[in-house]
Amino acid sequence: MFDTVLIANRGEIAVRIARTCREMGVRTVAVHSTADRDSAVSRIADASVQIGPPAPRRSYLNAAALMEAALAAGADAVHPGYGFLSEDAEFARICEENGLVFIGPSPEVMERLGDKAAARAAMSAAGLPVLPGSLTPVGEDEAAGLACEIGYPVIVKAVAGGGGRGMTVIPDRDAFAAAYRRTRAEARMLFGDDRVCVERYLPAAHHVEVQVLCDGHGNAVHLGERDCSAQRRRQKLVEETPSPAVSPESAARMAAAALDGARAVGYRGLGTFEFLVDDESGDFYFIETNCRIQVEHPVTEMVTGVDLVREQLAVAAGLPLSLRQEDVARQGVAVECRVNTEDPDRGFAPTPGLVAEFVPPGGPFIRVDTHAYPGMRTPPDYDPLLAKVIAWGRDRDQALDRMDRALAELRVSGPGLRTNVGFLREVLANPVFRKGTHTTGLVDRMLASRNG
Amino acid sequence: MFDTVLIANRGEIAVRIARTCREMGVRTVAVHSTADRDSAVSRIADASVQIGPPAPRRSYLNAAALMEAALAAGADAVHPGYGFLSEDAEFARICEENGLVFIGPSPEVMERLGDKAAARAAMSAAGLPVLPGSLTPVGEDEAAGLACEIGYPVIVKAVAGGGGRGMTVIPDRDAFAAAYRRTRAEARMLFGDDRVCVERYLPAAHHVEVQVLCDGHGNAVHLGERDCSAQRRRQKLVEETPSPAVSPESAARMAAAALDGARAVGYRGLGTFEFLVDDESGDFYFIETNCRIQVEHPVTEMVTGVDLVREQLAVAAGLPLSLRQEDVARQGVAVECRVNTEDPDRGFAPTPGLVAEFVPPGGPFIRVDTHAYPGMRTPPDYDPLLAKVIAWGRDRDQALDRMDRALAELRVSGPGLRTNVGFLREVLANPVFRKGTHTTGLVDRMLASRNG
Repeated sequence: MFDTVLIANRGEIAVRIARTCREMGVRTVAVHSTADRDSAVSRIADASVQIGPPAPRRSYLNAAALMEAALAAGADAVHPGYGFLSEDAEFARICEENGLVFIGPSPEVMERLGDKAAARAAMSAAGLPVLPGSLTPVGEDEAAGLACEIGYPVIVKAVAGGGGRGMTVIPDRDAFAAAYRRTRAEARMLFGDDRVCVERYLPAAHHVEVQVLCDGHGNAVHLGERDCSAQRRRQKLVEETPSPAVSPESAARMAAAALDGARAVGYRGLGTFEFLVDDESGDFYFIETNCRIQVEHPVTEMVTGVDLVREQLAVAAGLPLSLRQEDVARQGVAVECRVNTEDPDRGFAPTPGLVAEFVPPGGPFIRVDTHAYPGMRTPPDYDPLLAKVIAWGRDRDQALDRMDRALAELRVSGPGLRTNVGFLREVLANPVFRKGTHTTGLVDRMLASRNG
Repeated sequence: MFDTVLIANRGEIAVRIARTCREMGVRTVAVHSTADRDSAVSRIADASVQIGPPAPRRSYLNAAALMEAALAAGADAVHPGYGFLSEDAEFARICEENGLVFIGPSPEVMERLGDKAAARAAMSAAGLPVLPGSLTPVGEDEAAGLACEIGYPVIVKAVAGGGGRGMTVIPDRDAFAAAYRRTRAEARMLFGDDRVCVERYLPAAHHVEVQVLCDGHGNAVHLGERDCSAQRRRQKLVEETPSPAVSPESAARMAAAALDGARAVGYRGLGTFEFLVDDESGDFYFIETNCRIQVEHPVTEMVTGVDLVREQLAVAAGLPLSLRQEDVARQGVAVECRVNTEDPDRGFAPTPGLVAEFVPPGGPFIRVDTHAYPGMRTPPDYDPLLAKVIAWGRDRDQALDRMDRALAELRVSGPGLRTNVGFLREVLANPVFRKGTHTTGLVDRMLASRNG
């Protein structure tokens, strides 16, 4: 096992990683920008190194500063968390070149799966169903022709996109040219890469993803699926497992498909295969693979009892998987809510600043992953995720009732501080959500009808 | 189900009960003495009623004040928690007379099991092994004769005793008379009842208890055992399940014995059958039944997924058990540590006062049950239990490593405030505890060698 892990991230995921390392007896070195001087992870990690000013490009995206910190601290591995450099093949290569183990898949696999068109092509070749559309990037004329062939609505996606950005739904032929060009321009700006692909758009779909774990010895297991259909503008808001939208048989087929896909590309580490499930037909289609731990991983941990960060470290250290597929038993239902410091009455604009009061919920079957504590300051430079509240129940109703109780209990306040807790409770109480039949459009429709 | 439950308790257990009630949609009315005006439960319950001054006799033990509060609030049931009036048959009768359901066994059963001699006699008749000794209270001459017959050391126990008080170990014949008289005097003072019984004392034993749950329809299940051998002066400090000291076969035999005992007395509700396990022979002996929820119940909840307070309410409302024995699957290992505001360097004297800072641990597989929050004041009038930290793991090592991580993370401070967290971590690190071979004497021996 590693002696010292550098945590190349911030916020709740840095705390999450430090916790497991401590339990494993692995030393941790955290990093912080000057805006995160008093971060919670610095209280938990064995050391914390300042790596630059608040701007992400100069700190958490600054590979040189991270390498310097890692080497000075005597780290032998780097955990990238999610976001930032977690899916940056170049960063993974720099780690390797500096003699550090990058805790994630190989740079080659990350590169291949990070390119949406290449990933679609690879998965289609591996037998996974993909939505009709282009398997490679397409120019405007070809794209327009393809759109006609597939039938509108279609979606145009940046090959380098992610996190719900760089994609546009095009309702009909008249809107095509302008939307196509706008998406390319946006992709160029956001990702420095304006290649796009086009595919059929499902007007009503469920977002269901499969967690896989593979070692370097040919072993691969899945840890079940997660349903992330409750999204605001393609940003996940509430996640759960198992998915209320698919039958156990369908979920098993998706899991098998994900394992096929992982094996086809020689995947090593923890990964997520995302699928869209057509609400009408129940058919599922591969969309992309996330080569990192995900924000919503705790729901999987709660139903399986498996510490995913521990497994990431073990696999990265070259150990064979500690579990076989038959060891992965899933019990009950787990739900996660993302608590953000943002103002639902002002378009969910972030409200950075002092968190004067913070009392997390607790008690039976509640887990809280947070970097918040009374007196902390949330900087304006990063995403507004303050805490994840996770609730487990013997069944979905029990998990949802427990979640609502926990959210009601959470106390967080500060000057100008707002949170989305009230809105999360509205989503939980929504009859469609409660029934578990919601598609990815539900939350946006709730907001539209509220504003309308 | 009940409409409104009065919570006749304080501290963490009042919060614990209010949480489940809220999840079930049951209204809660908390009570508080003037010392507990700003208690955490008053933030969670639907209402909180002041019932008297700090002295327990005038508030939490004041049946008349509690009845007044319950009736004024329109409560239809009373949850007594643990301690205070939770095992007071008279209080259960008063509730019934006022048309309120007492959430616990019937007064008759509580009376019978509350008398240690009567309980021993009943359980011996039901076929449970009991330690050699008196099945009824004994006078000095009879007791002395019995002690010789059994062989020293013996233990003299107040029939009305509990919580580790009112009992004396007598090493030899010379010490008998004085110790016997002192125990009776103490019992008279503590419990207003000086009857005692005498039994063999096991010099090296494990404390193992079985959780049972019975409805009023003849159904009874057990939820496995808990090991509470880590005790300081007979006060439980660290509890865990399963017990590392007994084989699964032996645990199954104890569980079957507990169910026999419960059926023999027509037990209804949640109850705990406590046993001593002889370290040498592995034989187990019934000691007593606790007719209430216990401080250490969360470890059972964590491995079974069953909310024990929910089951208490359901059974008290007359519903049949929602689980059969085959539904009770136990997964992994759970450990609980009791965090007290007390000074380990001054004989564990309580340090009441302001809790200026309180940041609980969190993250994977950690549960915290507490009534603490930043700015609270712990009154000197009640027991110093501030928080229970519970950790789950796939195996015992993982659970213990996780517990140590959580305790290291917990931040609690205030003027003059001390806690036993450092000492808890010493116990967790003790090689005998770590091996799981510790008996009830380990912690006291650790302290004696530290002081010696």
